[in-house]
Amino acid sequence: MKATDAPSGTALAARLAGVRIVLVRPSHPGNIGAAARAMKVMGLTRLDLVVPGADRLDPQAVAMASGARDVLGAAREHASLGEALAGTVFSVALTARRRELAAECLWIRDAALLAAAQAGPAEVAFVFGNETRGLSNEDLSQCTHWSQIPADAGYSSLNLAAAVQVAAYEFRMAAAGPSAPPAIPDAGVPARHEEVAGLVDHLERAGLASGFLDPARPGRLVPRLRRLFGRAGLEREEVALLRGLLSALEKQKS
Amino acid sequence: MKATDAPSGTALAARLAGVRIVLVRPSHPGNIGAAARAMKVMGLTRLDLVVPGADRLDPQAVAMASGARDVLGAAREHASLGEALAGTVFSVALTARRRELAAECLWIRDAALLAAAQAGPAEVAFVFGNETRGLSNEDLSQCTHWSQIPADAGYSSLNLAAAVQVAAYEFRMAAAGPSAPPAIPDAGVPARHEEVAGLVDHLERAGLASGFLDPARPGRLVPRLRRLFGRAGLEREEVALLRGLLSALEKQKS
Repeated sequence: MKATDAPSGTALAARLAGVRIVLVRPSHPGNIGAAARAMKVMGLTRLDLVVPGADRLDPQAVAMASGARDVLGAAREHASLGEALAGTVFSVALTARRRELAAECLWIRDAALLAAAQAGPAEVAFVFGNETRGLSNEDLSQCTHWSQIPADAGYSSLNLAAAVQVAAYEFRMAAAGPSAPPAIPDAGVPARHEEVAGLVDHLERAGLASGFLDPARPGRLVPRLRRLFGRAGLEREEVALLRGLLSALEKQKS
Repeated sequence: MKATDAPSGTALAARLAGVRIVLVRPSHPGNIGAAARAMKVMGLTRLDLVVPGADRLDPQAVAMASGARDVLGAAREHASLGEALAGTVFSVALTARRRELAAECLWIRDAALLAAAQAGPAEVAFVFGNETRGLSNEDLSQCTHWSQIPADAGYSSLNLAAAVQVAAYEFRMAAAGPSAPPAIPDAGVPARHEEVAGLVDHLERAGLASGFLDPARPGRLVPRLRRLFGRAGLEREEVALLRGLLSALEKQKS
């Protein structure tokens, strides 16, 4: 799988389109812009702002949004969280703090899996609070789920846009499903058994000829080289390179 | 799973302490500060800066670091990436771009699992490039592994601190979780960055002395060797074995 394509591009696109990122009373324009960028790099485009404390097209917001100015421009503004959540069937409130009235709190990875299972035909939301005060208990009670990003006990205060980045990343990972590593554009041709064996033989001969190996007690050179090359997964071109260097070193003596 | 504390606090702390975040030529002080905060919330404290283009204690850096000013203060500065990687046995280069000489590229989740399996007694590093230019091919070739953060095909440009946030988060998840790969019972002692670099230098010198390499056009030997050895995860004993053989071949000429 290429790093950019999902296993099923259309299904992924539909899931990504079913997600809202909701920022409740964000106060710093830079954070609003950085959140837009964090969303867009993960393929999320719908941003909802509840009573924002800054102009979303403030120059600082636009600068931090970088290539995601379109997300800022298309963002919707709301007078209440309830309005921003209208139409959603699943909403995750992100919270760093422990609450008295705590329902079960999910790790963001698990919350993202649940959200990805619903997003597509249905609408889901990830809800983030103000930089200083977080979400109020009233806000929390309006969301269907609560979630936490694992963090250090001594300093657990993620920047708002950093929290959006982690949530958007986890949603994308969950929505894209299990995936193969990114494609190797020009990975070499794997060496065959007999090519690797030829290299090991060559190294052993060189070791004997140079006196590095005692013919009576050759020791563990060969098994060690086999183990190393097996682990490395040698490519054909690498075998040729190493044998070329070895031949040059052998000729050098004459 | 409820969002509670990590399963084994001491083991987690040891793993977290074995990680360096390396920023190569970062240019914006705000990004350096935000990266420090992104690290600290995930429990990472060691920041290494290679030829930073901004003062790490610039007021903007300190403002973005928020409660992570101590990480900025304790950061180490280096004249080269090699210097920043000295002592590490495993290093992950974060890259968004496709490369000609691409080794296998891991998703960040998988790279974090591999890193978490080594970090603790051993030192590992996550390496990030400049905001505009990323990492050079020379930088990439010095790292043992390459990794990518999944992103949208049309807009894949994560902010530097956002990328650090995702990597640090994934490392914490891998280090805390039950999913870290099992230890390999009879694995040898992993070779350090400078030990592998010494072997590559030795091979290059031998290649030049033997006429295998044209000094005017050294070609791709060094990057190819770095890539091979990085993929292999060389052990200290293997480095000693290969250098011993090489020395014997060199002496043979006289």
